[in-house]
Amino acid sequence: MTSGSPSSTPPAAPVSLGEFGRIRRFFAPLTGPAALGLADDAAVLQAPPDGRLAITTDTLVAGVHYVGDELPEMVARKALRVNLSDLAAMGAEPIGYTLSLALPRSVDDSWVAAFAYGLHEDQRRFGLELLGGDSVSTAGPVTITITALGRLDGPALTRSGAKAGDLICVSGTIGDGALGLEVAMGREAWPSDVAEALHDRYLLPHPRLGLGRALVGIASAAMDVSDGLLQDLHHILEASEVGGVVQAGAVPLSSAAQWVVDSDQERWLPRILAGGDDYELLFTVSPDRLDMVNMIADRLTMAVSAIGTIVADSGLRVQAADGTDLELKQWGFRHF
Amino acid sequence: MTSGSPSSTPPAAPVSLGEFGRIRRFFAPLTGPAALGLADDAAVLQAPPDGRLAITTDTLVAGVHYVGDELPEMVARKALRVNLSDLAAMGAEPIGYTLSLALPRSVDDSWVAAFAYGLHEDQRRFGLELLGGDSVSTAGPVTITITALGRLDGPALTRSGAKAGDLICVSGTIGDGALGLEVAMGREAWPSDVAEALHDRYLLPHPRLGLGRALVGIASAAMDVSDGLLQDLHHILEASEVGGVVQAGAVPLSSAAQWVVDSDQERWLPRILAGGDDYELLFTVSPDRLDMVNMIADRLTMAVSAIGTIVADSGLRVQAADGTDLELKQWGFRHF
Repeated sequence: MTSGSPSSTPPAAPVSLGEFGRIRRFFAPLTGPAALGLADDAAVLQAPPDGRLAITTDTLVAGVHYVGDELPEMVARKALRVNLSDLAAMGAEPIGYTLSLALPRSVDDSWVAAFAYGLHEDQRRFGLELLGGDSVSTAGPVTITITALGRLDGPALTRSGAKAGDLICVSGTIGDGALGLEVAMGREAWPSDVAEALHDRYLLPHPRLGLGRALVGIASAAMDVSDGLLQDLHHILEASEVGGVVQAGAVPLSSAAQWVVDSDQERWLPRILAGGDDYELLFTVSPDRLDMVNMIADRLTMAVSAIGTIVADSGLRVQAADGTDLELKQWGFRHF
Repeated sequence: MTSGSPSSTPPAAPVSLGEFGRIRRFFAPLTGPAALGLADDAAVLQAPPDGRLAITTDTLVAGVHYVGDELPEMVARKALRVNLSDLAAMGAEPIGYTLSLALPRSVDDSWVAAFAYGLHEDQRRFGLELLGGDSVSTAGPVTITITALGRLDGPALTRSGAKAGDLICVSGTIGDGALGLEVAMGREAWPSDVAEALHDRYLLPHPRLGLGRALVGIASAAMDVSDGLLQDLHHILEASEVGGVVQAGAVPLSSAAQWVVDSDQERWLPRILAGGDDYELLFTVSPDRLDMVNMIADRLTMAVSAIGTIVADSGLRVQAADGTDLELKQWGFRHF
């Protein structure tokens, strides 16, 4: 369930189907009844009973949010998953999504076929369907906008509930995405097992939907880590009007990221703490609920690590193992 | 209420606010409670009781969907209104929208300020609010994706219910948008009052929300005219598995469009019938309900014209005043 590549190859496709042909052939099969066959002016979605909906939009631009030479099915899955990660951070259950695809004329039907195939794989995995969309041409790079809708059965997780004394926790491991970008850009010559593990994590985030839903009513604040651990923690601290102290040594690293840090800690530790593309959940929780969090993590066979503490005084500090504060300003974080 | 330009000038703006600064300053004021201040991972929308939602997505690319030198507030309003026109075609009432804005680095804060101002003006006019969004940079042209949500209190209007014997009707006038594009491109030297009227209609569509809601339960099929009257009527005929006969002389023209047609009918009539960007409602209705439609049109002080008839035999025919069929194939419509 965590493989970085599709389980089989995308279907072959004829060329030059045109906009309507592409919609009928590649995208209509991704829909359920709500999409009305992609043949009407809008989808009609039955809202959940008692219904509250979480709604999020994320755009990926080739050359900005991904390198540009990735396989189209991987680009599709990433575009969907970054949105699902936002739903996870709210504690929502995915229902469906709309897709806008702005494509240069150089993109052929086989690219679109593979892109739709990637969506198909991840729709099945995460239990949602295509609701509608738009397909346009552009003189610029491939630009993908997905708006995802999720169902909220309870209150939403938000960023604003952290309280002094709460523990700061993260799921999974931090920094793999940022280091994976170095691999994708061909900038670092790391051993192949290290490079591949990091690159996989950069290509394909794993939205923590089960964890997000389980944390509703337990976590005091939550968000997903997309801009970088420290930047995103800063958002929680601001929204909650509190401060935080992070123990750098407690931030969980994959064995691949650990190898990179051991090779040059001064260079790579800041990148791990401040780089983006983790798509893990960052959340705060009262210490007396840590046992519940650990039980949830065990049930989901997922690592959750306490990496610091919320404090009353505003500001964010990161402590090294010897208790001294790291110099965040040197890393370009002027506002902390 | 139908002016083509904002009622006052947009506020002046400082430069280089950055992504977060632009969101806080220009877009947060466009939100209601559902958006959580644009400070969380997703919006939380209370779905309507009994709730069915219409959801639609449209993308505008500079240089493709608009010329590129339009005022940013007009671009914003068009981007919103083309989505509202889709909601109108379903008979839905607008609730809110998400916005994705992919901007080249050359776009400055004052452009974004004016763009947000345009959204603000139209939000108030049409009664909806910003729910969330994404702001990204691109090496390509300005690319705007809006996903709009509407409430459906009854069944949705769809394209698939037209029956033999139904009348084919359109709201407003047809062809102004397509002729207005000629003005926007500087290709035609028409008298200034003609040119201005057409250009205004190209810049700013008027979504027929009131008419769409009123037609629920009355019209047998409906859609908005965005790709061109004949192309879009063809969609209704296909979805409903019927054919249609249109009387070219019954298609309603503005006085500006009439002037253009009179100047060269053979050249401009096809453009009017096949050009896009009308954003009027095209619908079918049983003849015994035409009185109800006329009462609705009177109440909304809006023109509605019967332009033809649905027939059992598939295919679309357009008849001239003398009863002969126009040669659609010559206009590039191979499938009719």
